[in-house]
Amino acid sequence: MTDPTHVSNRRRLDDAPLLVAANGGTPEHTPVWFMRQAGRSLPEYRRVREGVPMLRACLTPDLVCEITMQPVRRHGVDAAILFSDIVLPLYAAGVGLDIVSGTGPVVNQPVRGAADVAALPQLEPEHVEGVSEAIRLLLGELGRTPLIGFAGAPFTLASYLVEGGPSRNHERTKALMHSDPETWHALLGKLAETTLNFLRVQVDAGVDAVQLFDSWAGALSPRDYVTYVQPHTSRILRGIAEYTGGEVPRIHFGVGTGELLGAMHESGADVLGVDWRVPLDTAVSRIERRGASRPVVQGNLDPAVLFADWQAVRGETERILAEGESAGGHVFNLGHGVLPDTDPEMLTRLVDFVHSHRG
Amino acid sequence: MTDPTHVSNRRRLDDAPLLVAANGGTPEHTPVWFMRQAGRSLPEYRRVREGVPMLRACLTPDLVCEITMQPVRRHGVDAAILFSDIVLPLYAAGVGLDIVSGTGPVVNQPVRGAADVAALPQLEPEHVEGVSEAIRLLLGELGRTPLIGFAGAPFTLASYLVEGGPSRNHERTKALMHSDPETWHALLGKLAETTLNFLRVQVDAGVDAVQLFDSWAGALSPRDYVTYVQPHTSRILRGIAEYTGGEVPRIHFGVGTGELLGAMHESGADVLGVDWRVPLDTAVSRIERRGASRPVVQGNLDPAVLFADWQAVRGETERILAEGESAGGHVFNLGHGVLPDTDPEMLTRLVDFVHSHRG
Repeated sequence: MTDPTHVSNRRRLDDAPLLVAANGGTPEHTPVWFMRQAGRSLPEYRRVREGVPMLRACLTPDLVCEITMQPVRRHGVDAAILFSDIVLPLYAAGVGLDIVSGTGPVVNQPVRGAADVAALPQLEPEHVEGVSEAIRLLLGELGRTPLIGFAGAPFTLASYLVEGGPSRNHERTKALMHSDPETWHALLGKLAETTLNFLRVQVDAGVDAVQLFDSWAGALSPRDYVTYVQPHTSRILRGIAEYTGGEVPRIHFGVGTGELLGAMHESGADVLGVDWRVPLDTAVSRIERRGASRPVVQGNLDPAVLFADWQAVRGETERILAEGESAGGHVFNLGHGVLPDTDPEMLTRLVDFVHSHRG
Repeated sequence: MTDPTHVSNRRRLDDAPLLVAANGGTPEHTPVWFMRQAGRSLPEYRRVREGVPMLRACLTPDLVCEITMQPVRRHGVDAAILFSDIVLPLYAAGVGLDIVSGTGPVVNQPVRGAADVAALPQLEPEHVEGVSEAIRLLLGELGRTPLIGFAGAPFTLASYLVEGGPSRNHERTKALMHSDPETWHALLGKLAETTLNFLRVQVDAGVDAVQLFDSWAGALSPRDYVTYVQPHTSRILRGIAEYTGGEVPRIHFGVGTGELLGAMHESGADVLGVDWRVPLDTAVSRIERRGASRPVVQGNLDPAVLFADWQAVRGETERILAEGESAGGHVFNLGHGVLPDTDPEMLTRLVDFVHSHRG
């Protein structure tokens, strides 16, 4: 923490629309980027990934740089999102797991008890030197476009570890949480530490914002979220604020988290992502009822609407831009990640439309 | 509609806790039943289903009767739910589809355009005589326990038909909805008619309540729900009220529908099912803000919590019973269907606890 290098690489991009909006200011246009913009919807992505396993790709600097740049070049989005994977820090730290095509992450030895938790390795910066190097390459390529760092949140990581892979219902995870809270909190504490380390590495390398993605938090009741998850998420988000002196905006998002928005915002999010189920003005007033004033939100076009015609996409986009006006700032995005079969030309057209739109 | 038989088979069960609660009265104890209580969590179910395909089972009266009775005998729940499947009325009407183990319903010829919609067969009562006969058998077995009829709602049926099977993102369904609203409304109109016919058959045979289950409605933004789905759901729920003179309570439920609760209640639900993500008191105030006073709710224990120890299950159940007190009536249930690996003894214990609980 006394080493000042963690701010030295960061560019000064004070008028970048993403950062202006994240800080509650008035950007020259509504900033727009897309979760999973760097990925399967792009033929140039599929080309460079051919034959390269996902996790190896995430640790290969020139590949990460190229894949992260592709949607910036093609769509003219207002931010690059670091190409990565939620389980990457676990894998890099030495947890035995792989991403199996058609299934998702598969963990060799699921974590089910206190001894498993004690044996979990922690991430150290040297485990992810490929990520640091990728970020350094990106800073040379991006021009004035901000780079968003990325990490998965502890609940989602815990679910993969406890279930041994993707789970629809998270039975074992919730059983552990409720039946053995001590082991649960030990597990989430370790995962929070790993996540914080991973994000600090990205900050040191020069990212301009971070997104903490809790894919599965929406599977929790509000009480479970507040009791078993929020303290750990909060430790990460507040840890990043401390580490950067508040200079790197923290975006936080989970799918299906309509009832958790207030608590997620309180965890220390500068920008709260909202899925397409909750209109942005509803989200804003729900967060405000918890005491925050004029929160900044991100979202929330239903990614499936991109399969309809342009007229429908434009209509929904106009609705969302109007609903976003009640917020203290609005970063336009989808309400979840880009679906693999999305027509990339629709995304480009959407970026142009958001940029040209006058509220 | 002039044939009075549709009320003649129904038993008089005026003091049954389920019906008292559904009608806003004060039952002798909080009624409790479980969505998917008749199914894979029970070894006696797996035994009788061995070698019998799902849809054939749903049309075999003595099998439907036995499976529907199993959880009533074992757990002492306050209602039986007719053993059926969401796609049954489509299958019975002649739509080419099958339930494929490990996948779900698979439709031979997906419905993608106006001609496909025009060609869809409608359900006639004679297609589901097996269901009527099963209900008649059940009335002789159930004693004083009410029987809840069951049907899937039009959006969910449409998604299966348009996608050709289960879908995570409903891309084609939403594309059709937005790009060709005329065909969409024609499709949902036909599905509403089939669903209404199917529920009328069940009412004629003597069910005491109905549950309209919209599995996937929670995938819709509130605007899409209100524009493209609610009119059709409403037609079914109001159609049943007319058909029965309001004597058969209508339960309506969908997963992940926190933002839709007001609209779903307005569609004509007497009892609104709430999933575990939304605390019942939050659900009640959300519905009340839409103008309804003291709505009756059903739910909402997270089915995954049943994998924790009894102390955790009891704690969550107490919370839910307390939150349910703000409603005009509370039917205890899970916040989604029973998961296949649930320990049935946990369900029995839960029923006993809810019955013995004093608010």
